[in-house]
Amino acid sequence: MQSWQLPEHVADVLPTTARQLESAREQLLALFRVHGYELVQPPLMEYSSSLLTQIDAGLSLKTIRVADQISGRQLGIRADITPQVARIDAHLLSANNGINRLCYAGSVLHARPDGFLSTREPLQVGAELYGFADIAADIELIDLMLKSMVVADIGEVLLSLGHIGVFRALAQAANLDGEQSAQLLALMQDKDAEAVRVLVKAWQLDGMWAKAFALLPTLYGGREVLVEARAQLPDLFAVGSALDELQAVCDAFPERAVHIDLSELRVDNYHTGLLYAAYGDKSHDAVARGGRYDGLGRYFGRSRPATGFSFDLRTFIGRLPAIERQSVVVVDWKDVAAAGEAIEELRAQGQCVVVDYGIDYNGSNEVAGRLQNTDGIWQVVEV
Amino acid sequence: MQSWQLPEHVADVLPTTARQLESAREQLLALFRVHGYELVQPPLMEYSSSLLTQIDAGLSLKTIRVADQISGRQLGIRADITPQVARIDAHLLSANNGINRLCYAGSVLHARPDGFLSTREPLQVGAELYGFADIAADIELIDLMLKSMVVADIGEVLLSLGHIGVFRALAQAANLDGEQSAQLLALMQDKDAEAVRVLVKAWQLDGMWAKAFALLPTLYGGREVLVEARAQLPDLFAVGSALDELQAVCDAFPERAVHIDLSELRVDNYHTGLLYAAYGDKSHDAVARGGRYDGLGRYFGRSRPATGFSFDLRTFIGRLPAIERQSVVVVDWKDVAAAGEAIEELRAQGQCVVVDYGIDYNGSNEVAGRLQNTDGIWQVVEV
Repeated sequence: MQSWQLPEHVADVLPTTARQLESAREQLLALFRVHGYELVQPPLMEYSSSLLTQIDAGLSLKTIRVADQISGRQLGIRADITPQVARIDAHLLSANNGINRLCYAGSVLHARPDGFLSTREPLQVGAELYGFADIAADIELIDLMLKSMVVADIGEVLLSLGHIGVFRALAQAANLDGEQSAQLLALMQDKDAEAVRVLVKAWQLDGMWAKAFALLPTLYGGREVLVEARAQLPDLFAVGSALDELQAVCDAFPERAVHIDLSELRVDNYHTGLLYAAYGDKSHDAVARGGRYDGLGRYFGRSRPATGFSFDLRTFIGRLPAIERQSVVVVDWKDVAAAGEAIEELRAQGQCVVVDYGIDYNGSNEVAGRLQNTDGIWQVVEV
Repeated sequence: MQSWQLPEHVADVLPTTARQLESAREQLLALFRVHGYELVQPPLMEYSSSLLTQIDAGLSLKTIRVADQISGRQLGIRADITPQVARIDAHLLSANNGINRLCYAGSVLHARPDGFLSTREPLQVGAELYGFADIAADIELIDLMLKSMVVADIGEVLLSLGHIGVFRALAQAANLDGEQSAQLLALMQDKDAEAVRVLVKAWQLDGMWAKAFALLPTLYGGREVLVEARAQLPDLFAVGSALDELQAVCDAFPERAVHIDLSELRVDNYHTGLLYAAYGDKSHDAVARGGRYDGLGRYFGRSRPATGFSFDLRTFIGRLPAIERQSVVVVDWKDVAAAGEAIEELRAQGQCVVVDYGIDYNGSNEVAGRLQNTDGIWQVVEV
């Protein structure tokens, strides 16, 4: 095995792409900032018991674990930043019950990749709002998620909406136990309408619930889906509330292409309500995902309403705007001492000045000029 | 154990500090850029055989290792970025033998902390130059290292210089074997002059070498040390070359406070020549370290001259310039839709506008104004 080989689903980011990512990162943090979101940097590793809350078994397989040489306890390398930010909100920043807006941009590691083309080192960028349970907070976050998408050329952005509350309300009303509920949810996530029908028939569910579950995978499409759902789903309070919330989001983005799917439930296990995602018309998969996850903070001492989104900035590689090639001015290494002031002046203006040792210049930028002394004055001469 | 507790030597970075770090990071990358250094982002994890080159046993204890679930091979979480950048230079960016200037800013993890107050998650920032063996390249990097120190208030910056070449030349001339050499080097690093004297006496070394080794720990101080060293150390070609290099560096920084120490050899095992470090007068330990490490690239297919430095940006926490507190404008959530244009205009100007849900504002910034509709015009009214 060659020592320069990298593990599968792991990659170097080389200069041109690195600058694009860095520029997108700065742009996103500035965007979050003017919306009042404050940057936090939770650690790359924590006790795995803190990273993996009880309700969050889905993350477990992805989390790399090692023994702590100091405490002997098990450490995990974070596979998701959201639970860490919930911990910070619950434990460190909740002296009162006010609203916290927090954002982050950091690497996470996955023991196994999410998919065939996924990296095991996503650069997770996201924003979270704690302390307000109303749908207005979700709308604020969806707005910010959609604005974030402008850093990359992903084509027309489609807002995709779901709501775990509809399924949960039906499962509760139909008296499904935890195992049944999980089994049915998995089929919904696979969009296997036929299997859903077969299963609820096998369980001999009351006709109303059987019909409702069979209906869910067919309830997708544009804004009109909400009308249909209201007409056809059982008249449960929790179902009505969920549909009201979906309606409020649709109304808040009147110009936006919206896709509603009441069986689109690919969520982290901590999600509790509205689910939202952004799709670009150049990608098959969602490029950003979020949702409401009230109560995650209770594992860290304080239950709080919460909503937020995140995405892997690295999935945008190849769709980030080209960075203008920087022109380079070279200066002969024998001249560096004498030309010191002129060099620093150019650099202070943002001009890249590179020392020329008479060896090939390997950089990715174009050499546009050479600093030379003409009649006692240091000047850039075009090359 | 509380789920919000963090492992020892691991910490959250909260908003005020996170912004300071972010700002320093951007400033450093811009500084590197105008000097021609291009950003690379090697992965957080690699096969441990790539992270830990044969000559680099010192890193081994610090490197966290896990089994790769895909290949079954051992992975390491990087504890140092420099060998990764050497790999990139040797394998990916060396189509010709030209010069590569590369820089980076990324987290590394240490299984054990370096010291009592050290973090196990340093934010390693550094720059490296490949392809030029002359001392002029080291001088370029020292200049950049010293310039980097302006991001933090560490007081007057002292340039500390050493050279592993002096010790290596003596060890070779005195015919020390690898074990003896390592034993003696460790005593030098501990500055235990008495133990050095006892040991070389016990080995019954030839008087000239015994005297030279005993002398090394006394050769420290200002620029005058070089004169003394030249007068008193054995007249070996490699010793003379090392002293010439140290002289060239001193001459390149005529105004700078310089400390030379020929037994200051706290280095990574890959270092081969000149050693440099920056000290602030407010810190006991070096804040940045670097040196020459020719040949590290041969583990990755191409031996190349190399020199570079790095530092942990997190050690500057507490000494970074205060970020100006951002004034916040609030807008009532009922007004968001109607005031949409006015809000986006303010944000485009860099003004932070936060939606007010009638709940305490928890942010770290001051609320300076409120967006209100006066006679049909949205205006910021001071609060």
